[in-house]
Amino acid sequence: MTAYPELERRFRRLSALADAASMLHWDSAVHMPPAAAPARAEQLAELQLVRHEMLTADDVADLIGAAAEEVGGDPWRGANVAEMHRLHVHARAVEPDLVVALTKASSACEMIWREARPANDFAAVRAALAEVVGLVRREAEAKADALGRAPYDALIDQYEPGARIEHIEALFDDVAAFLPDLLDRALARQAAEPAPLPLDGPFPIPAQRALGHQLMERLGFEFERGRLDVSLHPFCGGVADDIRITTRYDEDDFAPALMGVIHETGHALYEMGLPAEWRRQPVGAARGMALHESQSLLFEMQVCRGAEFIAFAAPMMRDAFAAAGPAWRADNIQRHYTRVERGLIRVDADEVTYPLHVILRTRLERAIIAGDLAVADLPGAWNEGMAELVGATPDDDRDGCLQDIHWFAGTFGYFPTYTMGALAAAQLFAAAKQAVPGIPDAIGRGDFAPLLGWLRANVHAKASSATTDELLTAATGAPLGAAAFEAHLRARYL
Amino acid sequence: MTAYPELERRFRRLSALADAASMLHWDSAVHMPPAAAPARAEQLAELQLVRHEMLTADDVADLIGAAAEEVGGDPWRGANVAEMHRLHVHARAVEPDLVVALTKASSACEMIWREARPANDFAAVRAALAEVVGLVRREAEAKADALGRAPYDALIDQYEPGARIEHIEALFDDVAAFLPDLLDRALARQAAEPAPLPLDGPFPIPAQRALGHQLMERLGFEFERGRLDVSLHPFCGGVADDIRITTRYDEDDFAPALMGVIHETGHALYEMGLPAEWRRQPVGAARGMALHESQSLLFEMQVCRGAEFIAFAAPMMRDAFAAAGPAWRADNIQRHYTRVERGLIRVDADEVTYPLHVILRTRLERAIIAGDLAVADLPGAWNEGMAELVGATPDDDRDGCLQDIHWFAGTFGYFPTYTMGALAAAQLFAAAKQAVPGIPDAIGRGDFAPLLGWLRANVHAKASSATTDELLTAATGAPLGAAAFEAHLRARYL
Repeated sequence: MTAYPELERRFRRLSALADAASMLHWDSAVHMPPAAAPARAEQLAELQLVRHEMLTADDVADLIGAAAEEVGGDPWRGANVAEMHRLHVHARAVEPDLVVALTKASSACEMIWREARPANDFAAVRAALAEVVGLVRREAEAKADALGRAPYDALIDQYEPGARIEHIEALFDDVAAFLPDLLDRALARQAAEPAPLPLDGPFPIPAQRALGHQLMERLGFEFERGRLDVSLHPFCGGVADDIRITTRYDEDDFAPALMGVIHETGHALYEMGLPAEWRRQPVGAARGMALHESQSLLFEMQVCRGAEFIAFAAPMMRDAFAAAGPAWRADNIQRHYTRVERGLIRVDADEVTYPLHVILRTRLERAIIAGDLAVADLPGAWNEGMAELVGATPDDDRDGCLQDIHWFAGTFGYFPTYTMGALAAAQLFAAAKQAVPGIPDAIGRGDFAPLLGWLRANVHAKASSATTDELLTAATGAPLGAAAFEAHLRARYL
Repeated sequence: MTAYPELERRFRRLSALADAASMLHWDSAVHMPPAAAPARAEQLAELQLVRHEMLTADDVADLIGAAAEEVGGDPWRGANVAEMHRLHVHARAVEPDLVVALTKASSACEMIWREARPANDFAAVRAALAEVVGLVRREAEAKADALGRAPYDALIDQYEPGARIEHIEALFDDVAAFLPDLLDRALARQAAEPAPLPLDGPFPIPAQRALGHQLMERLGFEFERGRLDVSLHPFCGGVADDIRITTRYDEDDFAPALMGVIHETGHALYEMGLPAEWRRQPVGAARGMALHESQSLLFEMQVCRGAEFIAFAAPMMRDAFAAAGPAWRADNIQRHYTRVERGLIRVDADEVTYPLHVILRTRLERAIIAGDLAVADLPGAWNEGMAELVGATPDDDRDGCLQDIHWFAGTFGYFPTYTMGALAAAQLFAAAKQAVPGIPDAIGRGDFAPLLGWLRANVHAKASSATTDELLTAATGAPLGAAAFEAHLRARYL
């Protein structure tokens, strides 16, 4: 073998450069002073350009061809070469100038958005977003040609390899077939009961942070390999041995930060559980964003809003906030955490309405990429869609089309993976409980090891050695579907 | 012109990659969890390797030759090409494998040192340091060949271009001619007076941080272009519009952190004052570490331990710590800040004994690079040298040869620049006061603009367009010498 080891060597270098960019991106969101944005954009663009040059070097295609023969039927090496090929085709499709322009424009637009959102000033970011959209559309068309797919599919493939919008819409149609009725009935059932007793604050940030830390450790987050910090838009960043999750705190309500921390911990556990021996190779990366989101939602929605977890966590919450009384009983807390509402903000949405937020964004970004929706018309289209799908209309753009970072950071084709992840989470948790019946009791004792062990073996350790549907089929007996999600919602809300 | 613009384009890319590495280095010292060290070392090594490849590409030497003709007598472009040439020769001298090995070994050794120092465990870091030393000696020999200098001079040239140890030792001999006697007399004079009244703490860290911020802003630090954080070994890092300075706090004594913050602010003001139009080109960088240190010491030693500054700052200190009484009078505070002592720790040393610490380190690192001193013998040689030069012997290695990060991070040839900087600081401050006689009164009012304006014009704005001695001659009428430093010490301490 000569070609395959040479490719491994090059992709190891690419991985180090991608890791460097990942750390700088985290810093941009957490620490960077405002005037540094142009310099940071230049750093990120340069890292992107160097990676692009390395990934599209003239001999890469030949090396991949030769390596594929060298590795033969070896499943991991074969999958590694296939991933190398996918990344090469994506990179090769786009001219270096466009790569640089896109990175710079996205970085600049994201920085403007960071000020435009709290100022409720869509006009301030409109031109920057229009520039980003123009460049992303060029990227989508270039990748569509190279991959032999529709432009929007080519964008999706960056986040969820192999997925196509027709298949995703079929899944979303399955969801749409039961969800509106289920939502109406859940709201009616909720309205028929007395409101939960209020959990009165204030909840000091140090106490919230300490509780978050405590729960992260219980869930399996290793603090010698990661950190928890604060940023406007919570995320899980960093690299395998240096996972950086962020949250934002509200002194009047501890639930958003706590559930956010648990969500990002789910992402972090996936990254921390990837196979060390394949780290720094494409096949060693997380499979895609649908499975990534399945890990965060499995913890946030399936586990941590369930009765077992809340029975375990309620005393910790009471300790953290020196709270007592009937409002702080587990059943009352759970009623807060499973409250359904036609709300405006995706990241605050309950698991019943969440898919409707995603369907809206998927519809809008498809139209933007197709050239059917202009950036100037986005606020109006957003508000109309919210009224139709969720039954709620934003008062302003801050709670409307300015709420999510994605488009302003140049990310299109990502939103569908949230709901694909919700479906996968339900499917995986059901399978895990079937395979290891002691999981719910263990969760009730604050012991997450049985669940984490099953996820490590069936999801994390597989990395990108199989497709999402292959992996789900091996783990749950079926490819991605909506049945487990529907069963979960019916059991919890009806 | 074709070669010169092409070189500008390439060095702009190199600058972005160096900036990325600078930010990652800051993060390593401030935020990184322990298990992330190997991954970070890999990121930094890869950035170093990519820069090395770009800087040593086959056509660079020809481009530099052609560019030198293209720019003719243009002073800035000419100086830019000369700096490009110097960087190219340094890079070209060293094999890529050695670059990678050195970066990884230094990064690993620094991480071990971070634990070995507080544990007072030289044995734990000895092997890692020996590996670093072996690689640095190979580097020094390779660069010596390429530059036509002695190996130790070749290392010095990385930090203070053009400097040679013979010239430095001549300067140090000038210092050694007056310093021991001056130190004896200063200590005798001090001993004949009653001790200063104690400044009693504790000094809460938030109050120290707020005072530091306040003074940084008064001195001219722009917080929209930088930050203040905490690290074990205080430093000034980051990039032009994103200057990251760090300090460490002691609740029993606020002076070390405060003076440290002022010191790093001096470095930061230099970086913030470099000419924006030459940013990202070699000629736009700070001239060298001697001038860099002159800027930090000018603020820390010349300005902020002077009577005018302390008269202005004493009320701010009293406010910050809700303190009152005779101990908090400006004259008593100044007596604390100009206290002379045969101490063990360089970074805590007063300006009279400081050069003795530097002379020791210069002597030791010269011997290490020459192969005359083995790493295993370092603790003993350190303790002997301290006894002879400073008149104090460390009780343990924590306060001995483990105290400085430099060697453990692979930095040899840097120490002499501290004392060169002290000499330059005295020379520049004397010249500034002669040119702008209102400077001392303005400092007494907390107005640093006249001083900063003079430094901006005479030092910062010149960047690397002239040599250190050319720049000092233009600003002060003479090349670097010890006379102004001696005059300063006599005026303040005798």
